[in-house]
Amino acid sequence: VVPPSPEADNVPLPVGWKCYMSAEGRKYYVNTSSKETTWERPCTPAAAPKPVRTHNNSGNPMLVFPPHIFGLEMSCHINFVTFPLPHSTPEQQLLKPSEWSYCDYFWADKKDPQGTTTVSGFEVLLQKQLKGKQMQKEMAEFIRERIKIEEEYAKNLSKLSQIPLAAQEEGTLGEAWAQLKKSLADEAEVHLKFSSKLQSEVEKPLLTFRGDNFKKDMKKYDHHIADLRKQLVSRYAAVEKARKALADRQKDLEVKTQQLEIKLSNKTEEDIKKARRKSTQAGDDLMRCVDLYNQAQSKWFEEMVTTSLELERLEVERVEMIQQHLRQYTTLRRETDMFNQSTLEPVDQLLQSVDPAKDRELWVREHKTGDLRPVDMDI
Amino acid sequence: VVPPSPEADNVPLPVGWKCYMSAEGRKYYVNTSSKETTWERPCTPAAAPKPVRTHNNSGNPMLVFPPHIFGLEMSCHINFVTFPLPHSTPEQQLLKPSEWSYCDYFWADKKDPQGTTTVSGFEVLLQKQLKGKQMQKEMAEFIRERIKIEEEYAKNLSKLSQIPLAAQEEGTLGEAWAQLKKSLADEAEVHLKFSSKLQSEVEKPLLTFRGDNFKKDMKKYDHHIADLRKQLVSRYAAVEKARKALADRQKDLEVKTQQLEIKLSNKTEEDIKKARRKSTQAGDDLMRCVDLYNQAQSKWFEEMVTTSLELERLEVERVEMIQQHLRQYTTLRRETDMFNQSTLEPVDQLLQSVDPAKDRELWVREHKTGDLRPVDMDI
Repeated sequence: VVPPSPEADNVPLPVGWKCYMSAEGRKYYVNTSSKETTWERPCTPAAAPKPVRTHNNSGNPMLVFPPHIFGLEMSCHINFVTFPLPHSTPEQQLLKPSEWSYCDYFWADKKDPQGTTTVSGFEVLLQKQLKGKQMQKEMAEFIRERIKIEEEYAKNLSKLSQIPLAAQEEGTLGEAWAQLKKSLADEAEVHLKFSSKLQSEVEKPLLTFRGDNFKKDMKKYDHHIADLRKQLVSRYAAVEKARKALADRQKDLEVKTQQLEIKLSNKTEEDIKKARRKSTQAGDDLMRCVDLYNQAQSKWFEEMVTTSLELERLEVERVEMIQQHLRQYTTLRRETDMFNQSTLEPVDQLLQSVDPAKDRELWVREHKTGDLRPVDMDI
Repeated sequence: VVPPSPEADNVPLPVGWKCYMSAEGRKYYVNTSSKETTWERPCTPAAAPKPVRTHNNSGNPMLVFPPHIFGLEMSCHINFVTFPLPHSTPEQQLLKPSEWSYCDYFWADKKDPQGTTTVSGFEVLLQKQLKGKQMQKEMAEFIRERIKIEEEYAKNLSKLSQIPLAAQEEGTLGEAWAQLKKSLADEAEVHLKFSSKLQSEVEKPLLTFRGDNFKKDMKKYDHHIADLRKQLVSRYAAVEKARKALADRQKDLEVKTQQLEIKLSNKTEEDIKKARRKSTQAGDDLMRCVDLYNQAQSKWFEEMVTTSLELERLEVERVEMIQQHLRQYTTLRRETDMFNQSTLEPVDQLLQSVDPAKDRELWVREHKTGDLRPVDMDI
């Protein structure tokens, strides 16, 4: 069976065929004389696809509303959700084309890798959210570790700056050396400030973004959607039950009609009318059950679209939040390197001023023993 | 006693006074009739300082070469070195004025703080040199400690960069995160390079500058100068011995002469001539001993000047070497901060490229479960 080409829509229908719209907005075609129904747009009889006859067991024509054509399935159910069969449907358009939106790609359940259970598409989306929260937590942990490293480094630099090595160097050289040692304490300060800002501006936001309520919210979504699926299951069961009851009633009517025709039994026309009434009632019951099922499915559908779009939004927010805070990390790092460099300025200045002659003067003034030079002894 | 003012040199000497130059280049004045000698330039008799008489015990005029005027000291010895007395000398000019040179200020010994021993001025200079070597060593130690701190920091950063925290983050955010983690390994590299250069360009030169030979050289100087001082001591002793011998001879001559005059004994003129000869000989001996002493002192003097100037030069060299290498330290630090900053560039680039939409596409492509949307069930 060949799906219609898009241009076929412009070709007029062959004589006797009419076009109708199904509940979910799909076109179907009915042969007004034979009552044949088909999804495919009929062409000229010569090219027309093989018509599908509807009939009951005794050959009487039977009217069956499309898209469900008795004997040829147009849809199937998987885990109690009703999907169109590929050949039976015109191409579905994405709800949000080009956006790779969550609401377009997670309708089906998938088999667990182990193969025993299935996981709903929505579950997959939820897991993604929870994993995102985990990522955020691990990133915060990473920053915490960086903070510890910085504090250790600062502590070591600070300790070293206080050790009195070469403390006895005096003069301009001594000053430059003392400032060099002090610069390590300044560096330590810089790194402590860095670690402090890392904590308040990166780690803490990453840790506290969304907090514990997030998991609760996700659980709520999870339960809500799962409940809607459960409803679908029970309503599907009702449909199957009604369908069976209808089949039973129809069979009963058929048998009774046959018996009347061949005057097999003493069944009166009254019995047949009763059987026919029960059959009609069973048909109405089935229609009601299918309606309830479709309502439940629509409800689930709506909630899926709404909630998956919310999860999509939350994920965008998460990515942007992380991006922002990682940028803050690099900003703090740059700052730190600049401040660190600036601790060298006083050192360089004093090194510039180192003056051996001046240092000699200072030292000699303090340590000279005597400037009177010896003279010859005389007799 | 007032030292002469500089202008006094232009005033002609009073009658009978002559000006002579001593061995070490100092002027002294002799009264040609009285044979008085003085350091101070005589003025007109009215303002002339009290002349200094030379005489022996019996009043006979005695010629004593200045600056040593028997009975009134013009110089004194301290620890066997002969120094001019302050009032007896025209102002000594510094050998290297305005330079605070070692060769000008370390002539005298100084008392040990404890007060029991003395330390020569040269010793003080030597100790300064050895202390300088110690300073250099301690600075190298300080750099070594910095190196250890850097290596620890690098090791910690490197380890952290490898911990798979948030490794499951994918897409553009995952890339940026991976690069951020990698940047810690890059930072570790930068700090390792820093520590490596610290070792080769700062620590090592500070440690090896002058090496072990330096202490040996200092010891050599120490012993050499000390030996010259010892020579001075022994030659001073010889002078004292000769001086005493002369005094004895002179006394003996005096006694014998007196005895002849009062015909106290049967001493002949022969005896007196002998006594006079011995006296003269003793005088010659004394002169010779004084000469030898002065030679030894001159030798010590020259070595003091030469060696102390060498120590001065070495100290200038030391200060300049340290200044140069501490500048190298600050250069390496600046470099390091710059390289450290540059490790952020790829991180910032990738953070810039973080794209939630792209990441959604990548994730959805991989994890989608199905894009067929459910349809209504039909009867």
